[in-house]
Amino acid sequence: MNNKRKTNKKRVGIIGAGPSGLAQLRAFEAAKHAGLEVPEVVCFEKQSNWGGMWNYSWRTGVGKYGEPIHGSMYKYLWSNGPKECLEFSDYSFDEHFKKPISSYPPRPVLFDYIQGRIKKNKIRDYIRFDTTARWVNYNDETEKFEVVFDDLKIDKTYTEEFDYLVVASGHFSTPNMPYFKGIEQFPGQVMHAHDFRGADPYKDQDILIIGSSYSAEDIGVQCHKHGAKSVTLSYRSSPIGVNWPEGIKEVPLLTHFEDDIAHFKDGTTERYDAVIMCTGYQHKFPFLPDEFRLKTKNNLYPDHLYKGVFYNNLPKLIFLGMQDQYYTFNMFDAQAWVARDFMMDRMEMPSKRERRVDIDRWLEDNDKLENSFDHVDFQSAYIKDLLSLSDYPDFNVDEVGVMFKEWLKDKDENILTYRDKTFKSVVTGTMAETHHTEWMDEMDDSKERYLYQ
Amino acid sequence: MNNKRKTNKKRVGIIGAGPSGLAQLRAFEAAKHAGLEVPEVVCFEKQSNWGGMWNYSWRTGVGKYGEPIHGSMYKYLWSNGPKECLEFSDYSFDEHFKKPISSYPPRPVLFDYIQGRIKKNKIRDYIRFDTTARWVNYNDETEKFEVVFDDLKIDKTYTEEFDYLVVASGHFSTPNMPYFKGIEQFPGQVMHAHDFRGADPYKDQDILIIGSSYSAEDIGVQCHKHGAKSVTLSYRSSPIGVNWPEGIKEVPLLTHFEDDIAHFKDGTTERYDAVIMCTGYQHKFPFLPDEFRLKTKNNLYPDHLYKGVFYNNLPKLIFLGMQDQYYTFNMFDAQAWVARDFMMDRMEMPSKRERRVDIDRWLEDNDKLENSFDHVDFQSAYIKDLLSLSDYPDFNVDEVGVMFKEWLKDKDENILTYRDKTFKSVVTGTMAETHHTEWMDEMDDSKERYLYQ
Ligand SMILES: Cc1cc2nc3c(=O)[nH]c(=O)nc-3n(C[C@H](O)[C@H](O)[C@H](O)COP(=O)(O)OP(=O)(O)OC[C@H]3O[C@@H](n4cnc5c(N)ncnc54)[C@H](O)[C@@H]3O)c2cc1C
Ligand SMILES: Cc1cc2nc3c(=O)[nH]c(=O)nc-3n(C[C@H](O)[C@H](O)[C@H](O)COP(=O)(O)OP(=O)(O)OC[C@H]3O[C@@H](n4cnc5c(N)ncnc54)[C@H](O)[C@@H]3O)c2cc1C
Ligand SMILES: NC(=O)c1ccc[n+]([C@@H]2O[C@H](COP(=O)([O-])OP(=O)(O)OC[C@H]3O[C@@H](n4cnc5c(N)ncnc54)[C@H](OP(=O)(O)O)[C@@H]3O)[C@@H](O)[C@H]2O)c1
Ligand SMILES: NC(=O)c1ccc[n+]([C@@H]2O[C@H](COP(=O)([O-])OP(=O)(O)OC[C@H]3O[C@@H](n4cnc5c(N)ncnc54)[C@H](OP(=O)(O)O)[C@@H]3O)[C@@H](O)[C@H]2O)c1
Repeated sequence: MNNKRKTNKKRVGIIGAGPSGLAQLRAFEAAKHAGLEVPEVVCFEKQSNWGGMWNYSWRTGVGKYGEPIHGSMYKYLWSNGPKECLEFSDYSFDEHFKKPISSYPPRPVLFDYIQGRIKKNKIRDYIRFDTTARWVNYNDETEKFEVVFDDLKIDKTYTEEFDYLVVASGHFSTPNMPYFKGIEQFPGQVMHAHDFRGADPYKDQDILIIGSSYSAEDIGVQCHKHGAKSVTLSYRSSPIGVNWPEGIKEVPLLTHFEDDIAHFKDGTTERYDAVIMCTGYQHKFPFLPDEFRLKTKNNLYPDHLYKGVFYNNLPKLIFLGMQDQYYTFNMFDAQAWVARDFMMDRMEMPSKRERRVDIDRWLEDNDKLENSFDHVDFQSAYIKDLLSLSDYPDFNVDEVGVMFKEWLKDKDENILTYRDKTFKSVVTGTMAETHHTEWMDEMDDSKERYLYQ
Repeated sequence: MNNKRKTNKKRVGIIGAGPSGLAQLRAFEAAKHAGLEVPEVVCFEKQSNWGGMWNYSWRTGVGKYGEPIHGSMYKYLWSNGPKECLEFSDYSFDEHFKKPISSYPPRPVLFDYIQGRIKKNKIRDYIRFDTTARWVNYNDETEKFEVVFDDLKIDKTYTEEFDYLVVASGHFSTPNMPYFKGIEQFPGQVMHAHDFRGADPYKDQDILIIGSSYSAEDIGVQCHKHGAKSVTLSYRSSPIGVNWPEGIKEVPLLTHFEDDIAHFKDGTTERYDAVIMCTGYQHKFPFLPDEFRLKTKNNLYPDHLYKGVFYNNLPKLIFLGMQDQYYTFNMFDAQAWVARDFMMDRMEMPSKRERRVDIDRWLEDNDKLENSFDHVDFQSAYIKDLLSLSDYPDFNVDEVGVMFKEWLKDKDENILTYRDKTFKSVVTGTMAETHHTEWMDEMDDSKERYLYQ
């Protein structure tokens, strides 16, 4: 509306147009819609499209312009949690799809849903695509961030200044890939989950997967579903421990390889055709000076972030979505609305010491968690805390917590059929439809087949 | 020797400790040995060891610290040119191995040779390993390069200043990966040569290779040697055109995929298990502002480089090894010696205009080249020009040119046996030994087997 560039307007830079970065844009757009004056906002996205992880890439390694590929998703990826646990409270599934759909949609369908909200709000103009944030300098004198960007399409670098910097670059892109003795001589393919693009190449093969978290579980099940001869999951701390079907088993950690033979901690050995390391990701911020890098493992409450978003040493540096995630889209929203209010001077920032006390309280609680149910409760409490701080439309967090626990039980019972279950929306009250085809028989993950057949 | 840090000493920063960066260190070491005062030199290498491409990594994608993997070499890689064409003229194969060896050694043997010269000259102390050059700023006022480094091991960034910056970061690391319609749906593995780590996984498979240069040729032959069922090479401009053995063939360019079926320009179609794109690499300098980036295709005389090394707009910015390469180690040496002399004020730098005229002359000649023999002659002329500018020990370039042409003919005749031929060293006059096993029967590329069996 207001085309005049006011020189005294604050500037906000957002790095990344995945669900978190888009949530931040949406939060500002909501304020503007409510008649408030918002800062000048620019979002920088290294991919050619928005959606972050959900923007599937067939490529691995580096992309067209030589930048590391961000995407870790693969063909036939379906939501691994009920969609009712991530629903935007300001844009329901009903509003988008105009009819009830199942609780576990495939990737293209969730991508479509993410796009629906932002298309509705004309957010594309804020985003500079094919642009990598290369290096950030914080100028102590001007108190501004000087950010070097690389416009990949025209191979041009330039610097811009911001009063606030929102880092929404994700943390499931840079593989953590441990070394195991003898792996250099393993004759088959060795890859990280990040480079997995679908289970087809593993038909009739014996597959070794390292890890015991979501990627290990889902990639294991995918390989099984698409015809692998056998799948072995090798765990470090503890097995996933669900009721595995015949053809999938869990064993203790790999110790080393001799050619194509894997040796495990319990003394057993087995031959494999390929190895897929589902060993998690690193929080990696190559564009930040190390004093501003969030240095953390994947966990529910990374240290140094007040309310899980404000970098305690410099709260104008904001991180979104850096937590391990039960809640996803709705959590990013809740964070982005709080961050927006701070950037619009609508939220008072406590002193550094007070912030530290608050962080420490969460860290102590986090330390006490014992099982997945505790994790769910902890993250639910965090979401409630965020919701209390902004006008992001409230939703029934306790009810979502109950759904998460239901989901955990469903997986324990039958890892091959849990995606056939249905849940009720806390946003609209709509009960999900049963999908036309059972998940184990559904080999097509296209939106067309999902919605119209 | 001189431990006092003289504040007026010039500082030289070198990015990369591959053959080119090591050549630069060796050049300074030679000057020091001759009693000259040399600048303070620091070399930064993102890998944990030196050797660049020759430092084999089993990893693909990103490394331990999340940086893009540099290495493109693979198991069973043997020199694809006679070692007599790359011999250091100040450190012969005889000096290193103490006995004649064959003309086409495997990677570990050439790696050993590279190391021999630098170990002899105690060069390790100049190098900071596990350190990535992150961002370069040229300060017009101080006329110094301010370079941000990232010490990956301790996750720490810091800035240092240099009077001269030598970019020796290689240009066969960042894949050029074209898109072909339908490739997202190809069910098998799709990878770039950069991520190829050996032919074993392709046993009994039908392999499609895109490209018609060195990688296509060698990876095709490797797959054939290690038991692929069939290898198809698909070319864009022109076929490699050697006498292919049964099991390898060349076809025109791929147009698109339908599932696992490839369609080619000549209307033929064929089913494949896997696709390996041998489609070359990008010159990529993410750490440089775009005005200092060398923007070029892979060719024998990239524009903007005086004598193939000095960036014409700012000759204190020096690029090594950026050419397409017939000559390799000896060319990097010849370049590094000239670069050193400029950095030690022992070489006069002509005016920008004069440099431009010189560059243009080479570009014109380059434009006229018609075939591989012309290419060899052109690069030989370039080497001679370099040798005339420094005291790098002379060698018989014409004789090396003759060997290159012999090599080209050998490959044309029989692509499976050319590595069994032998050549005579222009440095020592030694005739190479015939290897104990014919290349097609030699499945072990270890140094131990090569040297001692
Ligand atoms: C394999 C996999 C499956 C998943 N499945 C589910 C699921 O089923 N349900 C669910 O709710 N969640 C799932 N997730 C979690 C997923 O991380 C979140 O849903 C969500 O994508 C996180 O959003 P984000 O915006 O924080 O990060 P991302 O989605 O990772 O987006 C970050 C964006 O930042 C950009 N970027 C990064 N660096 C730069 C830079 N230097 N300059 C410019 N741009 C940059 C990237 O290109 C990307 O677009 C999955 C994650 C993975 C890895
Ligand atoms: C598959 C393959 C096979 C080859 N086979 C042969 C052969 O048989 N014979 C032959 O003579 N040549 C061969 N070559 C050519 C090879 O490129 C040269 O032999 C030689 O390695 C080039 O040396 P370089 O130092 O210029 O670059 P590289 O060897 O590529 O070394 C560059 C170094 O810079 C480092 N680096 C890059 N970016 C940064 C950064 N930002 N910060 C710090 N360090 C950085 C890298 O880690 C690397 O160590 C082959 C090349 C390839 C790709
Ligand atoms: N929609 C889907 O179907 C789907 C599919 C895949 C992933 N995802 C999402 O992707 C995200 C990332 O999940 P993730 O499983 O990749 O990462 P993760 O949850 O961080 O788990 C990392 C795993 O790697 C193991 N590990 C780490 N280092 C190891 C080592 N040195 N040796 C052996 N094991 C090691 C860990 O074991 P310890 O327990 O011992 O630490 C853990 O099991 C999650 O948000 C998940 O929901 C979704
Ligand atoms: N020691 C060894 O055995 C060995 C093995 C492999 C590589 N190497 C070395 O590695 C270096 C790089 O060689 P390289 O072969 O990878 O790269 P290269 O020599 O630059 O060749 C690139 C190839 O890709 C083709 N190409 C590019 N874009 C394409 C597209 N869009 N569609 C189809 N084809 C496309 C080019 O075709 P056009 O001709 O049409 O441009 C060309 O054939 C060389 O120095 C080589 O010596 C050595």
